[in-house]
Amino acid sequence: MHPFSRKPSETVSALGEEKLIEHIRRWLGPVSPPAPLGIGDDCAVLAPSARTQAVTVDPVIYGRHFDDAVPPRAVGAKLLKRNLSDLAAMGAAPVAAVLALTLDPAVRTKWLEHFYRGLAACARAHRLHIIGGDVAQCSGTLAASLTLIGRATARRMLLRTGARAGDHIYVTGALGGSLLGKHYRFTPRLAEGAWLATRPEVRSMMDLSDGIAKDLRALTPAGARPELIAAAIPISAAAKKMAQADKRPPLAHALGDGEDYELLFTVAAKAGLSAFEKSWRSRFKKIPITRIGRFVPSRAPVAPGAIDLSAYHGYEHLTA
Amino acid sequence: MHPFSRKPSETVSALGEEKLIEHIRRWLGPVSPPAPLGIGDDCAVLAPSARTQAVTVDPVIYGRHFDDAVPPRAVGAKLLKRNLSDLAAMGAAPVAAVLALTLDPAVRTKWLEHFYRGLAACARAHRLHIIGGDVAQCSGTLAASLTLIGRATARRMLLRTGARAGDHIYVTGALGGSLLGKHYRFTPRLAEGAWLATRPEVRSMMDLSDGIAKDLRALTPAGARPELIAAAIPISAAAKKMAQADKRPPLAHALGDGEDYELLFTVAAKAGLSAFEKSWRSRFKKIPITRIGRFVPSRAPVAPGAIDLSAYHGYEHLTA
Repeated sequence: MHPFSRKPSETVSALGEEKLIEHIRRWLGPVSPPAPLGIGDDCAVLAPSARTQAVTVDPVIYGRHFDDAVPPRAVGAKLLKRNLSDLAAMGAAPVAAVLALTLDPAVRTKWLEHFYRGLAACARAHRLHIIGGDVAQCSGTLAASLTLIGRATARRMLLRTGARAGDHIYVTGALGGSLLGKHYRFTPRLAEGAWLATRPEVRSMMDLSDGIAKDLRALTPAGARPELIAAAIPISAAAKKMAQADKRPPLAHALGDGEDYELLFTVAAKAGLSAFEKSWRSRFKKIPITRIGRFVPSRAPVAPGAIDLSAYHGYEHLTA
Repeated sequence: MHPFSRKPSETVSALGEEKLIEHIRRWLGPVSPPAPLGIGDDCAVLAPSARTQAVTVDPVIYGRHFDDAVPPRAVGAKLLKRNLSDLAAMGAAPVAAVLALTLDPAVRTKWLEHFYRGLAACARAHRLHIIGGDVAQCSGTLAASLTLIGRATARRMLLRTGARAGDHIYVTGALGGSLLGKHYRFTPRLAEGAWLATRPEVRSMMDLSDGIAKDLRALTPAGARPELIAAAIPISAAAKKMAQADKRPPLAHALGDGEDYELLFTVAAKAGLSAFEKSWRSRFKKIPITRIGRFVPSRAPVAPGAIDLSAYHGYEHLTA
């Protein structure tokens, strides 16, 4: 659905702000608690938290994170899931979210309804509340930014820092080709992230958003470099399909396409890997993990079959 | 300063996302703690909170909340202060914020530097941390949305609901004409809001953002209507100046201009008003409060000198 309409009666300008907010509350349904715990006061009131909290913010922007081909319900879900994936990457669980909407007055009310209903369904499934927000006008734009507050599920949050030279590098699922649909159909790895945070042999974690070729830098400890084994990289069917179409290697798609929303994590060098992998398989039957390489000292000789990561690129933001 | 430049070297596109985020951390300085308590991990880690929390989100958008005439430092401060004003309206104090930036690649790096430095100075003054954020690209746009997390300072948060017929209506400061400068030079009434939350005779509160003519509806209890006395409304010097220029009554400016960022609150009918007002004056010497009217039963006869609020309009959002 195209989000803009030339018929004023179909657009949010016909509603005005107050009616639009009423509609939003109805579209969100029970996901939007009554004020002051939800929409309607100057701030939303949130209960004290005995647990350490996690906060993240991510947007969806028309023309950037979605287009007319993505159903508006899926856009709403994607907005929340992008943020849920960030919580998953810490081993945290969601609590509440606020949403800042910026839109042109010509945005189609029907589009917004589906967007909010998709968001609400996803929030219900993950048992979190949408407790507040803001609606602002911005010509030619349709963008929503969601701030998600979560809580630790284990004694620690699993950070990006913590890996050491020698650690093994793992990834969930399969990589690449997300533009063919996974970029909005993905499942944030919340249960998996929470479980990994309880495992002492897991030392660091992040979610993959810009492609492993770029994202892996954030996990790499000082004095080390990642050594990935090309044959080990789990390449998705979508990556292979895109590779057939554009004649680029499937591996380039797997390493660089971005929007995988899988977990990338490291396991201590001395850990019992087979016991760890067995525990994973008994807990998460349908989600594979793959050991794709390890961090080695920067000066170590390059192993046969290792990927030269400098030849691959992740998704680059802010390009003119 | 105009926020966009045609010289690529002056723009964020010359930096790219990673360098821009490095710059942002430097511009924020000590206001941006090291990860995982700040920018740099999938989420920011926030300490447990023994107090009830308050969450609010508000943006600044180029062409909407600021233009070339507002110094970028003031835009950064305004973004935070708009949100601080919402916390003030609950009697809450700030803890931490995250910022979602959407910008065209042609945004001038210098503009952003001043914006972040202004934000940082304001955050330092209010002792809160900027703990995370996101940078996304959006053609033709410069917008920033800030989510602010606060904590209760008193045993309760002061809500919009709670007023009853008979209650007195008060406002801090003077109203109207904010476009002449107050819309970004205002001071959020945090200390005042926190003090009011401790006073049992104060029953409800909000901050004035769209003009009292519109905002007052949110405080009005069922079965009552506000009766404001025209002669009592504190009209700002700026409102009078604008009235001279546009030949509209100063009162219309005071009731409808919006962006006052003053506190509007109600005091129980039976309270000792002179003792209350005296306590205020001894605590806040420089900030006047004014009793501007009361809530009366809907069917009560209209008092002489009462304002017909239906003749005035606040700021309307989402107009085509």
